[in-house]
Amino acid sequence: MGTDMANKAVVLVSGGLDSATVLALAREQNLACYALTFDYGQRHRIELDAAHRVAKLLGAADHRTVQLDIGWMGGSALTDRDIPVPDVPSGGIPVTYVPARNTVFLATALGWAEVLGAQDIFIGANAVDYSGYPDCRPEFIQAFEKLANLATRAGVEGRPFHIHAPLMHMRKAEIIRTGVRLGVDFSLTLSCYDPDLDGLACGSCDACRLRRQGFVEAGVADPTRYRR
Amino acid sequence: MGTDMANKAVVLVSGGLDSATVLALAREQNLACYALTFDYGQRHRIELDAAHRVAKLLGAADHRTVQLDIGWMGGSALTDRDIPVPDVPSGGIPVTYVPARNTVFLATALGWAEVLGAQDIFIGANAVDYSGYPDCRPEFIQAFEKLANLATRAGVEGRPFHIHAPLMHMRKAEIIRTGVRLGVDFSLTLSCYDPDLDGLACGSCDACRLRRQGFVEAGVADPTRYRR
Repeated sequence: MGTDMANKAVVLVSGGLDSATVLALAREQNLACYALTFDYGQRHRIELDAAHRVAKLLGAADHRTVQLDIGWMGGSALTDRDIPVPDVPSGGIPVTYVPARNTVFLATALGWAEVLGAQDIFIGANAVDYSGYPDCRPEFIQAFEKLANLATRAGVEGRPFHIHAPLMHMRKAEIIRTGVRLGVDFSLTLSCYDPDLDGLACGSCDACRLRRQGFVEAGVADPTRYRR
Repeated sequence: MGTDMANKAVVLVSGGLDSATVLALAREQNLACYALTFDYGQRHRIELDAAHRVAKLLGAADHRTVQLDIGWMGGSALTDRDIPVPDVPSGGIPVTYVPARNTVFLATALGWAEVLGAQDIFIGANAVDYSGYPDCRPEFIQAFEKLANLATRAGVEGRPFHIHAPLMHMRKAEIIRTGVRLGVDFSLTLSCYDPDLDGLACGSCDACRLRRQGFVEAGVADPTRYRR
């Protein structure tokens, strides 16, 4: 089946482990996948290269990176270099939370989906082995889907959008096993919040901690190159 | 009262007539207003200069323009130069509709509001003398407010956001009279979808048509410089 015949989907791809697995799941459904990545001034910009490699290897029909200049807002350790990335989980919502990030990402994905005629949007939100971000919870995804169908021509005219978060209730180890089953090469992905210029992961931030534990629990060899 | 003592609000300011009036209404409530404008590849980019003049004159505490690179998505006469801006209303949702525009704008405003500690966000959405955009309706605004309070640390921690659309049920003439009462200099504002490089309005697009009729109905001299 050629891309012209397949249903289209927009897939948010960050370059991390979760969104690579989501893209593989969407491809498994024979969807023509339009991968969308954001360059929002994040500290871990090397993940943008990872996103491009992941999209290409998993056969995305197109991959675009949206420049979104919000770094000046500050307020997060991921975009504000004056706020250090913590080594240990802080409890509650951590300083790596980027205000309204997933809302902005999904809103932009929605715009592209409407232009493409796609009704399905995929995001790697997860509420199990996660960092406690409010915009990763099922009630957020449901509220966004409702909003999407009020906000758009397609929604109003009866071609509703569906927001898919297939990892929502998976543990990290299950995500890894799913990715392995679907042929995801996790050595291409980058989860670390504070990688060095060579792409080596710090090994101690919240994202590294969750990733490391996940590979151990999954019984899968961890291909990540850690600094320590 | 200095800015430090006032409650803060984020106000979406496009450079047009409606959002200038909204900013004046927020200032009337003694809010410290943080004006937010988007450079999203719109055809009428000269409105970005208008937005800056409006924000300054009405005493905004700060004004920022976010670069948001979505022009490549196409799908709208406002961002795609291959789609002409129509002279006459088309009926239904017009080709000047930009997919998910207000969702993206409000999402970004939400992020800035959370960083600032602001709980109020103002938008000039209007469902009376408007172009039929789905993301200008009251049910859209209500759905966004609900989403905002699920999406954010502030919402989860009990500092809820309120999305204000004070023009929602006003006719264009009423918006103009309100602006005049609050000292808005409408000669600084630009509504036209297709202005020339000198800032002259086309006089015939949907936005010009609504603006012209509004000044006539309000019994206020129209300071707009039209090409025809």
